[in-house]
Amino acid sequence: MSKQEAPEREIVIGSRNKGKLKEIQAVLAGLPVRLRSLSEFPDAPEVEETGATFRENAELKALVLASHLGLWVLADDSGLEVDALKGEPGVRSARYAGQHGDDAANNRKLLEALRNVPEAQRTARFRCVVALARPDSLVLTVEGSCEGRIGFQPRGHGGFGYDPLFLYPPENQTFGDLDPEIKNRISHRGEALRNLRKALAPML
Amino acid sequence: MSKQEAPEREIVIGSRNKGKLKEIQAVLAGLPVRLRSLSEFPDAPEVEETGATFRENAELKALVLASHLGLWVLADDSGLEVDALKGEPGVRSARYAGQHGDDAANNRKLLEALRNVPEAQRTARFRCVVALARPDSLVLTVEGSCEGRIGFQPRGHGGFGYDPLFLYPPENQTFGDLDPEIKNRISHRGEALRNLRKALAPML
Repeated sequence: MSKQEAPEREIVIGSRNKGKLKEIQAVLAGLPVRLRSLSEFPDAPEVEETGATFRENAELKALVLASHLGLWVLADDSGLEVDALKGEPGVRSARYAGQHGDDAANNRKLLEALRNVPEAQRTARFRCVVALARPDSLVLTVEGSCEGRIGFQPRGHGGFGYDPLFLYPPENQTFGDLDPEIKNRISHRGEALRNLRKALAPML
Repeated sequence: MSKQEAPEREIVIGSRNKGKLKEIQAVLAGLPVRLRSLSEFPDAPEVEETGATFRENAELKALVLASHLGLWVLADDSGLEVDALKGEPGVRSARYAGQHGDDAANNRKLLEALRNVPEAQRTARFRCVVALARPDSLVLTVEGSCEGRIGFQPRGHGGFGYDPLFLYPPENQTFGDLDPEIKNRISHRGEALRNLRKALAPML
């Protein structure tokens, strides 16, 4: 009798971001899944992130793509919640200064908004929701978060988004300073993905 | 060696409706779960169904209760989508005529809204989303639906809500006429619960 391999389940990552794909691949390593990038599906619809919460955005993206592609789809939404700004920029993190994904402008706007806020009140957290949707509309969502503080100027050239302003007190470094491997271990997205791995394994 | 019983997982049904509890118990029979009613938790918060979709409402209710009780919680939201009314009453199904849960007034309002709509254009569907939330914020959601047509007057005294107006063509009976056992087999909630059973079993 020849050795039977478990059939691999295909999961499409609802993102064209190569860094994200790599991070997801690392956390899900060893599971019988083959991850595919959204770049392989040029006709996939663009899903607007119009939801009021990270959860809504992640689910909407995953559901629309799973239904369109007829495949399992994993999508995430994440952002920064600053306590002194009552949770802002939140779901608007990527477009806080207006244009989507203008990291430099977003960081400038955040520093300006916190200009008169002292160190002790600059608490904040990164939050991430990861949603896995199947074409039959089943959705599994998990969360992760990472507590920190907003610095007074950017530090470090790693990561993206608000990483250079997000100080992680246990390491006394910003997410821009940190080694990617360490960042993945402590980050909001890393935590959400590890929670997903635990929940996903028995479904395969 | 004594026979080992699998430990039972406790799941709270986020509803005080005894009919719903019974229906859920029937579909999940045989799984190693012990279902508890929300009536056992008099201090549980009332969760307002303010979402724009069945999914949002079901998830919100399950998440808030799971976090409050520290237990797994199963909640559902469902309603009627009438094509001639562009999907109305939808998430407002229970409060279509104003007051929450006034079935007679809701049915009268629906008949009035469809007064001049001929039989062929009275197509509609019941939809249901069931959400299972854990205290760690993991959420599993599944859907079910049932296609039918809105009658010209109420028929049958079974069920609740719009059941006496919802004609199920394969049986040529309304949900108000149908035997509860048959209704559970074909209904939107029955389908969602069977989908949940399949997804839940490997998580226990």
